[in-house]
Amino acid sequence: MAAAQLSPQQLSDKHRPTLDRALDAISTRAYWSPHPEHPKGYGETAPADGLAAFQALRGTRFELDQPGTDGWTGGEISPYGPALEVEYPHADLEVLLPAMRAGMGAWREAGPETRALVCLEILARISARTHEFAHAVMHTSGQAFMMAFQAGGPHAQDRGLEAVAYAYQEQVRTPADADWSKPQGKRDPLELRKTFTAAARGISLLVGCNTFPTWNGYPGLFASLATGNPMLVKPHPRAVLPLALTVRVAREVLAEAGFDPNLVALAVERPGEGIAKTLAVRPEIRIIDYTGSTAFGDWLEAHARQAQVYTEKAGVNTVVIDSTDDYKGMLSNLAFSLSLYSGQMCTTPQNLLIPRDGIATDAGEKSYDEVVADLAASVSGLLGDDARANALLGALVNPEVKARLDAADGLGDVALASREITNPDFPDAVVRTPAIVKADGARKAWEKAWEGAGAADAELPYLAECFGPVSFAVAVDSTEDALELLRRTVRDKGAMTVGAYTTSSETERAIEDVCLEESAQLSLNLTGGVYVNQTAAFSDFHGSGGNPAANAALCDAAFVANRFRVVEVRRQA
Amino acid sequence: MAAAQLSPQQLSDKHRPTLDRALDAISTRAYWSPHPEHPKGYGETAPADGLAAFQALRGTRFELDQPGTDGWTGGEISPYGPALEVEYPHADLEVLLPAMRAGMGAWREAGPETRALVCLEILARISARTHEFAHAVMHTSGQAFMMAFQAGGPHAQDRGLEAVAYAYQEQVRTPADADWSKPQGKRDPLELRKTFTAAARGISLLVGCNTFPTWNGYPGLFASLATGNPMLVKPHPRAVLPLALTVRVAREVLAEAGFDPNLVALAVERPGEGIAKTLAVRPEIRIIDYTGSTAFGDWLEAHARQAQVYTEKAGVNTVVIDSTDDYKGMLSNLAFSLSLYSGQMCTTPQNLLIPRDGIATDAGEKSYDEVVADLAASVSGLLGDDARANALLGALVNPEVKARLDAADGLGDVALASREITNPDFPDAVVRTPAIVKADGARKAWEKAWEGAGAADAELPYLAECFGPVSFAVAVDSTEDALELLRRTVRDKGAMTVGAYTTSSETERAIEDVCLEESAQLSLNLTGGVYVNQTAAFSDFHGSGGNPAANAALCDAAFVANRFRVVEVRRQA
Repeated sequence: MAAAQLSPQQLSDKHRPTLDRALDAISTRAYWSPHPEHPKGYGETAPADGLAAFQALRGTRFELDQPGTDGWTGGEISPYGPALEVEYPHADLEVLLPAMRAGMGAWREAGPETRALVCLEILARISARTHEFAHAVMHTSGQAFMMAFQAGGPHAQDRGLEAVAYAYQEQVRTPADADWSKPQGKRDPLELRKTFTAAARGISLLVGCNTFPTWNGYPGLFASLATGNPMLVKPHPRAVLPLALTVRVAREVLAEAGFDPNLVALAVERPGEGIAKTLAVRPEIRIIDYTGSTAFGDWLEAHARQAQVYTEKAGVNTVVIDSTDDYKGMLSNLAFSLSLYSGQMCTTPQNLLIPRDGIATDAGEKSYDEVVADLAASVSGLLGDDARANALLGALVNPEVKARLDAADGLGDVALASREITNPDFPDAVVRTPAIVKADGARKAWEKAWEGAGAADAELPYLAECFGPVSFAVAVDSTEDALELLRRTVRDKGAMTVGAYTTSSETERAIEDVCLEESAQLSLNLTGGVYVNQTAAFSDFHGSGGNPAANAALCDAAFVANRFRVVEVRRQA
Repeated sequence: MAAAQLSPQQLSDKHRPTLDRALDAISTRAYWSPHPEHPKGYGETAPADGLAAFQALRGTRFELDQPGTDGWTGGEISPYGPALEVEYPHADLEVLLPAMRAGMGAWREAGPETRALVCLEILARISARTHEFAHAVMHTSGQAFMMAFQAGGPHAQDRGLEAVAYAYQEQVRTPADADWSKPQGKRDPLELRKTFTAAARGISLLVGCNTFPTWNGYPGLFASLATGNPMLVKPHPRAVLPLALTVRVAREVLAEAGFDPNLVALAVERPGEGIAKTLAVRPEIRIIDYTGSTAFGDWLEAHARQAQVYTEKAGVNTVVIDSTDDYKGMLSNLAFSLSLYSGQMCTTPQNLLIPRDGIATDAGEKSYDEVVADLAASVSGLLGDDARANALLGALVNPEVKARLDAADGLGDVALASREITNPDFPDAVVRTPAIVKADGARKAWEKAWEGAGAADAELPYLAECFGPVSFAVAVDSTEDALELLRRTVRDKGAMTVGAYTTSSETERAIEDVCLEESAQLSLNLTGGVYVNQTAAFSDFHGSGGNPAANAALCDAAFVANRFRVVEVRRQA
């Protein structure tokens, strides 16, 4: 291998202050980000350069120079219409996997700090190309440009950096060496010299998702790499490009820093090949990060027994509406939450629990029907202008989402019908406003469903995740009933988020207790510019890891501490 | 509930310095223990008082006053002969489990520091009764008194305290609250007030073991309790008493500190009832700690999917003998390791890999046969005196160990035959010196076994754990062969410990690499008073959690970080 172009000293000079700042942020959990959120923060020519770089990728073979390439594959079609026509290397695993392990020794010996700094250099280079990544995320996820830019760029990079900080901190909690001297009364003490080394588990597999390829991918990717594990990236077949770009950058940086670039590699599948299932049970794969359906997440947890498996699956997110002193703020906040990316976030509220007898607000008592109608009007107002609607909604990511939306009117009385929007720039994009369906949460109905009355589940569509722009205005007998429904929804179906509106401190406390007992992250009385479906790295936890929606939180010590093991060597002193 | 007799302030005055000292120890990993190792460290009357207290328990009903007692059960027979004749409450789980959850809210609200201090009070009271516990451990595990005293007393308490320190540290890494303010250019910043609460997962189940009921039980017990989880203790039916005493002390302290004593409860099974399997899959059980056979550990990992499962199973521990500059020291160190508690430690070496052509030593070249004969002589010398032999060996814990020992002479040439020893105090105790069997580790034979040649496995007894006083002197072609055999043994069978003797820095490095790559804890060139089978809390990790012998190490952050989840509540500021 050529001499490193990036020396440890250079890496330290450039990135150690950022690492220290990140370590401080995860301990105070105050606001912080080193990654500009505004597109203008990347220099004057960045927008045009980024777009040109993205366009230049289209219709090409995405060369990676990784071992074991036995063909080319790829067929991404943008949710906005155009085919990307990018081909990626297809890997012969019998060649690629052993090659990925070859550099593990040097990567381990580099130690936690150098590994962290190399990861920060990767993130810095990705950050510099945020505009290019934004287009890649937009045209694979269907997110609108601004969201693809922010969530796919700085916010994803923040989550990656956060994972590096946790990984670094965890590895240096045990000292590299220790002298141990045990008194023996009048005899000489027993003396040992001990060394402690963070040792990787083995190859880590990232099974990427369609909707947030970088945001959901970076925490696992950087947590595993920073703890010494080679990282094999298996993107969702419809969202390869953002992760392929990531792998390319990572390989460049690793090589320049004097490490084996094969520590990070890409595995793209041929149509219908289903390599995630094959890879997941290979003995070389010791860690898996996955975001996607509950069915495959459960399969991974059950079958990939040789690996540590971190899953984010589906959940049913609830908002409890008890009372508010800012009715208008509540409605506009909820309208935005339901509309953003057409409800295609794992954190979007699905069930809005509203007392049948109405709620108290600063604008007077509002009946269930009034709340639902006012919310519908708020969504309609927010999305009344097509340009604004396009900028908020993006495009439906795949035909299954559209099919679910089309079926919404069979699920109950439609309080707000979905509307088709034309995107003048991308006439083939499928753009839809969210639908709101009325449902009845009468205790008897859902208890019957939970008692295992088979068919009853089908009668309660709001108790299954309906991923996409469909939400349910669920009429409940009382706030007490709402809390019982919330509890059972979280316990049985899982939840990434819970929201609640109440002016009663007693009710607030009761909601908090449910969330503490069932392990759900709660946002209370949001009426301004923070939304229940958004979390900020370094401060907010994404998911709890304690309910069926996800077995891990982004990001905490539990997310990183089992990606490596501390191996001790002790010698007589 | 009555007013607390133990106030937070009293607990803090008494125990906070100890907690701080423990936190310091796990970060420096220097020697430390607050628990005296010598029986004389507990006061003049302690030995007699402890024995009397133990004797007073015999032939009684062990009252616990826990809810749902539906009968009495128990039939422990000391490996030293006498039946203990103690009866324990048998629990109706439908009553006990809900009762255990009732106190969770108050225990959560107490916060990490108070929970840690309550745990330290429990440990302090156990420590004060170390002599009583020593007899209880001796007469359930078969350990000799001094070992039962040290390993079952101060060393177990150290491991419990270590777990409390890790649990506390992990929970306070995230602040209890944070103010978050995100700049918005010229507009007002977005501002949130956030709280973060360590929330328990649910009831934690300890499935205890026969040989080290307290040492192997305390880490999980205290890690779970300190992170807010109620703890249900299911002892091994042959080793109930030490854990029943522990539960009683814990319940007393909880009540005195104003908490629900049902946060800790005991579940003793009727003969053949097998309640571990029933309990393990109940939805209330969210954490399981287990020490025992690989078969049941694997079953738990596969089936208790609703729980976090921490297992210590079986492994095959290896010592690589390449060369030494202290031949006599090496032999006496190994002889002690093989003899202690008749090889019934999960850390006892089983396979000694010795080059067929001999080794270089400070006493000249020694052939394979000479090394084996000298080691046999060293063991015989160590155990030549019956009193000393009894004090080191203890008793065989159960008839299965004896059966395996009796079968040893069918496994190869016996280099050292086991000898029967009489224990004058306990004539019914089954006391045996260790056997050493010669085996051939020729590459062909074990490769054949590993290639799946079915029956071949049976030809290689040293590749299965032979728990008890049987070790194998395995002849290998070279040290290189030894390392390959070591690697495959650790990878396929697991290992709690690896030992090695070499004077070559190159060989030393090669052994370290195998251990780093396969995640095994290594002791190098031990020739004095530290043995490969002993680890010290606060400094040494017990197991690595990275090979098949155990999925967790005692104790690190990974052992505690997933026993609770951080639940965040955020509000507009």
